Amino acid sequence: MKNCYLALVHHPIVNKRGDTVTTSVTNLDIHDIARSARTYGFDGYFIVTPVEKQHALVKNILDHWNTDYGNEYNPDRKDALSFINMANSLEYACKVIEEKHGQAPIKVATAAGFKDFDGTCEDLRGKLEVDNRPMILIFGTGWGLHASVTENVDFRLEPIFGAAKDGYNHLSVRSAVAIYCDRLRGSL
Amino acid sequence: MKNCYLALVHHPIVNKRGDTVTTSVTNLDIHDIARSARTYGFDGYFIVTPVEKQHALVKNILDHWNTDYGNEYNPDRKDALSFINMANSLEYACKVIEEKHGQAPIKVATAAGFKDFDGTCEDLRGKLEVDNRPMILIFGTGWGLHASVTENVDFRLEPIFGAAKDGYNHLSVRSAVAIYCDRLRGSL
Repeated sequence: MKNCYLALVHHPIVNKRGDTVTTSVTNLDIHDIARSARTYGFDGYFIVTPVEKQHALVKNILDHWNTDYGNEYNPDRKDALSFINMANSLEYACKVIEEKHGQAPIKVATAAGFKDFDGTCEDLRGKLEVDNRPMILIFGTGWGLHASVTENVDFRLEPIFGAAKDGYNHLSVRSAVAIYCDRLRGSL
Repeated sequence: MKNCYLALVHHPIVNKRGDTVTTSVTNLDIHDIARSARTYGFDGYFIVTPVEKQHALVKNILDHWNTDYGNEYNPDRKDALSFINMANSLEYACKVIEEKHGQAPIKVATAAGFKDFDGTCEDLRGKLEVDNRPMILIFGTGWGLHASVTENVDFRLEPIFGAAKDGYNHLSVRSAVAIYCDRLRGSL
């Protein structure tokens, strides 16, 4: 499997009523997802938002872990956060990857609600071996990625179905990221 | 697999220096872990702390999602949180399970740092089929479960190793819970 990147998208996102919105970056999404992606050998984590003030907010958080105090107290945290990149859009993130590796990444979308999808994590692993290109694994926030994103990817992953007898299926995005990381790269 | 329970332990916990401490309950640990456990068909989630004020804090948070506003805004959240139980100790949690099901649960400990362990998730699934008893899956906070816990369980699970080439392995407890839920019950 070639270089893998992860993206957490805050725009364009759908809210509860189906409107297109921009969600806020949260501190835990920064930390938990960086630690999962880093543990599973991803090469970078893009936090996607067009809101410049949120870029500054994330920079402040990252700076804390890069100071003498933060770094001394928890150097592993600094290590996980050092591979975070801010991106104004998903297109920009893909462009950064393409410039770095000389190939556009395979765009993979995740969603809890896909009725149609292109395959399982195992299928995707096979595809990545054959295509031999970088990949960007895309997660939404709020009530999920806008259709303009999911309709313009190369691969839509099978949702995580869980095992609740009554069909309850409401993982946090942080939990979904961890599970997909493990399914895609857990036995590498 | 019989009835499965999850426990998040805040005492006795080890801190960075190896001291025995009591950690604080955090809002995200309540929510993310409840949603993972509920999605994967667990029967209950015990938040273990001897600090009575923390019991009241959790109750306040749960009450919010049970009010008209919280319930109307996000009924799925209420649903996930409704199976949370507070416990003063792990022993108390096990006693509750035993009283409910007429059998003491198999105690399973998780840790990122186990050098010796009793088997993988697949091994544990096999054991649970044979033993046909309830299970409690135990997670630590802070720098991990105190030895007095891990030395007194029936099964110590293989750590999650990830796939980082440099061996980086620092998942949040919320991510570790999600991954173990998926490995243990993802294909049920």
